[in-house]
Amino acid sequence: MEVKDQLQSGNYAADISSIKEAQVRINSFIQKTPVLSSETLNSIAGRRLFFKCECFQKGGAFKFRGACNAIFSLGDDQAAKGVVTHSSGNHAAAVSLAAKLRGIPAYIVIPKNAPNCKVENVRRYGGKVIWSEATMQSRESIAKMVLQETGAVLVHPFNDGRIISGQGTISLELLEQIPQIDTLIVPISGGGLISGVALAAKSINPSIRVLAAEPRGANDAAQSKAAGKIVTLPETNTIADGLRAFLGDLTWPIVRDLVDDVITVEDKEIIGAMKMCYEILKVAVEPSGAIGLAAVLSDTFLKNPAWKDCNNIAIILSGGNVDLGVLWESFNK
Amino acid sequence: MEVKDQLQSGNYAADISSIKEAQVRINSFIQKTPVLSSETLNSIAGRRLFFKCECFQKGGAFKFRGACNAIFSLGDDQAAKGVVTHSSGNHAAAVSLAAKLRGIPAYIVIPKNAPNCKVENVRRYGGKVIWSEATMQSRESIAKMVLQETGAVLVHPFNDGRIISGQGTISLELLEQIPQIDTLIVPISGGGLISGVALAAKSINPSIRVLAAEPRGANDAAQSKAAGKIVTLPETNTIADGLRAFLGDLTWPIVRDLVDDVITVEDKEIIGAMKMCYEILKVAVEPSGAIGLAAVLSDTFLKNPAWKDCNNIAIILSGGNVDLGVLWESFNK
Repeated sequence: MEVKDQLQSGNYAADISSIKEAQVRINSFIQKTPVLSSETLNSIAGRRLFFKCECFQKGGAFKFRGACNAIFSLGDDQAAKGVVTHSSGNHAAAVSLAAKLRGIPAYIVIPKNAPNCKVENVRRYGGKVIWSEATMQSRESIAKMVLQETGAVLVHPFNDGRIISGQGTISLELLEQIPQIDTLIVPISGGGLISGVALAAKSINPSIRVLAAEPRGANDAAQSKAAGKIVTLPETNTIADGLRAFLGDLTWPIVRDLVDDVITVEDKEIIGAMKMCYEILKVAVEPSGAIGLAAVLSDTFLKNPAWKDCNNIAIILSGGNVDLGVLWESFNK
Repeated sequence: MEVKDQLQSGNYAADISSIKEAQVRINSFIQKTPVLSSETLNSIAGRRLFFKCECFQKGGAFKFRGACNAIFSLGDDQAAKGVVTHSSGNHAAAVSLAAKLRGIPAYIVIPKNAPNCKVENVRRYGGKVIWSEATMQSRESIAKMVLQETGAVLVHPFNDGRIISGQGTISLELLEQIPQIDTLIVPISGGGLISGVALAAKSINPSIRVLAAEPRGANDAAQSKAAGKIVTLPETNTIADGLRAFLGDLTWPIVRDLVDDVITVEDKEIIGAMKMCYEILKVAVEPSGAIGLAAVLSDTFLKNPAWKDCNNIAIILSGGNVDLGVLWESFNK
C-alpha cells in the first residue's frame, strides 16, 4: 500500500488533523524547542544533522506535548476528578505539570527503580506519588486501584490517540524550522513519540524516512517489525530508562506501516553519544535522548546502502532528565 | 554625564555603528543562539530569566563573534601571514576557527594550565599550538616572539575594538529576540564581552541595566570600579578559568562608565549555578558560563534595593567548554 493511502483518516489512532488540532490546543503551554547543529558532529557523521532539542521542553522531555493534549482534551466533568498514570518518569512529570496547569489533581504510580530526578520533577509539579514495584503488572494493577478509588481518568503514556497526536506536533514544528529534512531518527519505546512524528512528517512529505533507534537490551520493536506482530520481552536491560516499554495495540500498526527501519544500538554507543551531546553540542541529554545520535553514528546505519542518500537528518533529543551521578558512572564504565 | 552623551561615537573603542557593521560582517558565519527560559528557575529567582545560550555558539563560546569580526576585518595583505593570539582557551579556539574559515594560519599561545577540552578545540580547528607558562608575562612574551618570526597579526582576546564590536552583536540579537529585557547580567574578565554588550544594549535602550558577574577570587573589576582606575591582582584563584584576565585600557573606560555594578560571587555559588544549568535548563555550561545565574541568585543581588525592579533579566551563558572530569569533581567538593 502507498504511504498516502496508509495515511488516510481513520486508519490509525491519530492523523494529521488530530495532530494539527493538538498543536492549536497546546500551543500556548509548550516551548517551541530550538534546533541545534554542529559542524563537528556533521563531519563525524558525514551528513548534516539537526538536533530537535525536546530536552528543553517543559518538564525536560517531549512528553509534555502529549500529556498536555490529552489533559486539555478532557471535558470539564471528566477532568474534575483528576488524572492517573503510571510511568518511570518523564510522562509522570508531564502529566503532573499539565494537570497543574488545568487545575486538577494528578495521581502518579511510579516504579521503585525510577531515576530520582524524574521523581523530583513529579513532586515539583505537584503530582501525588504512589509507589509500585518495577514490573508492568505492578504498575498497571496499582494504577487500576487508584482509578477505582478516585474516579480519575487514566492518561496512558503512549497507547492513546491524544498522546500520539501531541507528540506529533514535533514534526509540524521541525519541518517548519528545517524544511529540507529528508530523514528523522526517533527513539522508540512504547511508540507514542515515533507514531506521532511519523504520521505528521509523512503526511507533510511522504518521501521522508522515519527510522527508530532502540537499545539492544530492549529491542522489542526491532523484533516486532521482524515478526510482523507485537513481540514483548521477558526482561529489558539498558541504561536508557525511558526506552523499556513495549509497543501497544494503537502504536504498533503505525510503527509497522510507517517506520522504515529500527536501528539497534549497544548501551556503550548510547553512552558515547551522550558524551558527545555534552561535550560538543553542550546539551544535557538523558541516555534515551542520545540514542538517535548513537544510531546515526552506528555501523548499522552508516553501512546500510538504503540510507546512503539520507543527507539532512533530524535527530530528536527526546529528554534531558538524568541523575548526574548516574551519568558520571556511565562515562567511567 | 548622561548615558546618551557617553555613547556618542568616538568616546570608546567601539560603538553601535561598529557593532552593527560587525553583525553584517559575521552574520553568515555565526550561529544565532537561542534564548531559553525555565519556570522553575524563574520561581527560584523570583524574576523572569532569559538565558542567551552562547555555549551553543560555534567553538562553544561567544568568543567566535569577536574573533570572526577581527579576522574578517583584516585586509588581504594583512591577513596573508596569519594571526597570533594567546588565550587560555575559548578565544584560542575561536581565532583558530575564524582563521580556518578565512583560509589563513592561526598561531595560538596557550598556557600550560588550560583545560584539555579547550586545547582540543584549537587543534580540531587547525590552530598551531605553542605552549607558554601560565603567567601573563610568559603568554605575552612568547606571543611577541611568534609575531616577529611569522609576521602574523595579533588578535587580542579583548582589548581591541573589533573584538568588542563582535561580542556586542549578542545584544542586537538578544533585544530582537526578547525586547522586554530590562537587565543584562554578563560575566566579566578582560571586559571585551561586557563592553560590547553594554554599548549595544544601552544604545538601543539607555535605561537597560548592565551588571557584571565576577568570581571573588579574581575580583579585579569590582576593585577597579571601587578605585576608579584599573586594578590588577598578584594572583587569581577561581574555578572559572575563563574569568582570570584583567581589564585593558580599551575595555576599562566602557566598564567604568556603562557597567552599573559588579556582583561578586563565590566559587561554590558558581558550582551550584552550573549544576542548575545541567539539571534544570539541560544546558552544559562551563563555570565562567554559569556565573550570571550565580549572580542573580546571590544575596548581593537579591537584597540590593537598587535591583528590586529588575524583572526581565537576560543572563549570558557565555560558554560550554568544560572537561567533564573537572566538572564532576567540582560537584562533589
